[in-house]
Amino acid sequence: MVLDPWGEFKVEDYEKLCRDFGIQPLKPLLHEFKDPPAFIRRAIIFGHRDLDIVLRAVKECTPFAVMSGIKPTGDFHLGSLLTAKEIVYFQKLGGLAVYCIADIEAYEDNDLPFEVSKEIAVSNIADILAIGFDPKRGYIYRQSRERRVKDLAYLFGKGVTLATMTAIYGDRHFGLYMSAFIQIADILLPQLKDFDGPKPTVIPVGIDQDPHIRFARDVAHRFRESLGFIPPAATYHKIMRGLDGSPKMSKRSPLSYFTLNEDLDSVRWKLANAYTGGRATAKEQRELGGIPELCCIYELCAFHFMEDDSKLIDMYRRCKAGDVLCGECKAEVEELVLDFLRQHQERRRSFIDEALRIVEEEERREPSYL
Amino acid sequence: MVLDPWGEFKVEDYEKLCRDFGIQPLKPLLHEFKDPPAFIRRAIIFGHRDLDIVLRAVKECTPFAVMSGIKPTGDFHLGSLLTAKEIVYFQKLGGLAVYCIADIEAYEDNDLPFEVSKEIAVSNIADILAIGFDPKRGYIYRQSRERRVKDLAYLFGKGVTLATMTAIYGDRHFGLYMSAFIQIADILLPQLKDFDGPKPTVIPVGIDQDPHIRFARDVAHRFRESLGFIPPAATYHKIMRGLDGSPKMSKRSPLSYFTLNEDLDSVRWKLANAYTGGRATAKEQRELGGIPELCCIYELCAFHFMEDDSKLIDMYRRCKAGDVLCGECKAEVEELVLDFLRQHQERRRSFIDEALRIVEEEERREPSYL
Repeated sequence: MVLDPWGEFKVEDYEKLCRDFGIQPLKPLLHEFKDPPAFIRRAIIFGHRDLDIVLRAVKECTPFAVMSGIKPTGDFHLGSLLTAKEIVYFQKLGGLAVYCIADIEAYEDNDLPFEVSKEIAVSNIADILAIGFDPKRGYIYRQSRERRVKDLAYLFGKGVTLATMTAIYGDRHFGLYMSAFIQIADILLPQLKDFDGPKPTVIPVGIDQDPHIRFARDVAHRFRESLGFIPPAATYHKIMRGLDGSPKMSKRSPLSYFTLNEDLDSVRWKLANAYTGGRATAKEQRELGGIPELCCIYELCAFHFMEDDSKLIDMYRRCKAGDVLCGECKAEVEELVLDFLRQHQERRRSFIDEALRIVEEEERREPSYL
Repeated sequence: MVLDPWGEFKVEDYEKLCRDFGIQPLKPLLHEFKDPPAFIRRAIIFGHRDLDIVLRAVKECTPFAVMSGIKPTGDFHLGSLLTAKEIVYFQKLGGLAVYCIADIEAYEDNDLPFEVSKEIAVSNIADILAIGFDPKRGYIYRQSRERRVKDLAYLFGKGVTLATMTAIYGDRHFGLYMSAFIQIADILLPQLKDFDGPKPTVIPVGIDQDPHIRFARDVAHRFRESLGFIPPAATYHKIMRGLDGSPKMSKRSPLSYFTLNEDLDSVRWKLANAYTGGRATAKEQRELGGIPELCCIYELCAFHFMEDDSKLIDMYRRCKAGDVLCGECKAEVEELVLDFLRQHQERRRSFIDEALRIVEEEERREPSYL
């Protein structure tokens, strides 16, 4: 199996993935977290590289950073939400939080003009602020406006063979490879002197982004002497299935996902049509019970909308026992989801001005020809 | 035959080269030059692409630019001198002159740290100023300090396949490909709005740089709609043979060339040992005459040190007729060369402060992480 950061893939078996790619399972580190959030308790973050180094920094109150980002091609969805929660979590543990709007990647991969991604950036920034990112102890930037990142990419390209690039990323067009170097620079940015680096840094990502992590660790090693980099740590979260039962939420299938800014009626409709683990008839369901392991609604709750473990376990048991039909269950979950969206949408509206300020200050500080 | 901008090659037949690569011979345009300098009269510039567009701008007094550069890996040699003379010539014809110090290429191709290339840049800039470049009607920059160039390279990479890159440049490491995009950006820089572009631009280069020119013309075409580029014109000069008779002057063979700042005794010694078209004995030479076509000393005069055609023709005839032995001839030419070097070295010393000012002003204006 090859992980492809720009494509579709399906993970059947996260344990095998860990073995195949040398990712450490998270479980042995669980006792290191006090008060772990649901995404850690529930093994939604299932694996990591070198997270122990970051956890040690947390424990010893020494500097560390958390860095991740979003490709500004649309509104926040549940994947961006998960990354955002992870960043906010590590920021609250005391880390310097760095959030990148990957507009060069959006240009190279999606042909998105920079004027367009700028507008989406404002929206994405409002979202991460609404989720709790504290800009006073963090840094938010667009790649096109961050000259350190653009410069470092030129440094990092030296000596990397085409064979290496195609082995990591497959046969791509040149601009996409360039954007890969930009992302390596994003990942290592918090370790520059400007950010009081080098320092341990954790990069929370979906497992599909692991090629960038491995490559960044190679580059960190190559420039260890001149720039002092510590190989970046990473956490890997599972990828949610599409609401329609497809292997991954994807913009290509609007029924597979919803955004955090979506019209509530539209979300209601998608939930009503979501794929569940229900049986063919109500009678069968009562007799055999449902299959929550297959159910996208259950997955929604596990990933995002039911923070209380006892409630989630209760939901699971009632389903298994045939005590509840999918329609009833969906109605309950729908309320949880819509409540969250209502609150989030209100919060994010209150952050739009600040998001705009961040983007405009960046334009003043850093003219760009992109 | 493949032209390789980063390697060695030997040109046997410039006419064939023109046919093979679609380069226009210069001859049919000769009447368009009034008062052409030696390098044009003598077909040292043997070919071009679209130079007629630039000559029309000269004639009609409409804006045009001339752009070229140097890789800052050492002092000016006779090749850099030729390019410099061409730039100064087109600048005097009224063009905006842009001169690039290719320090990103020096990093990617020669592993040269930017602190080192900065010092060489000062020296190279003093040389071009000494040769007559007028900075008030021109722009001199290092790639690492020119964000427009670094940004444009990211724009240009989109959609270019690996197959294209290997077809143009062969199988190289990734950084060298990135530096190729940087050079395409250098070539197109004078056409940005900041320089009152788009406008016709001529790039004087050695024929070994043609891959960059062809690629820049492709890119200009691809971005014609969004950035308005006119395909850059180019002139191609012949490559001087090494003084030791090798196909090309090369830093790898110190006897094959001298720099403009070289110790005069060292130059004298290299000239004394230069390869000529002389016969095995003085007697044979008197009887059969020499072979100036093979003679590096004659080539020196034709390229650089004998501006007066009648003197050059006289030199040729006396050699052919056996009227002069190589030792006598070399003694005459030695004086011409050393006179030039003495004057140049004095002039360039007087420009070092200005060169330093240009580099330091650039550092103030444009912080870089390279």
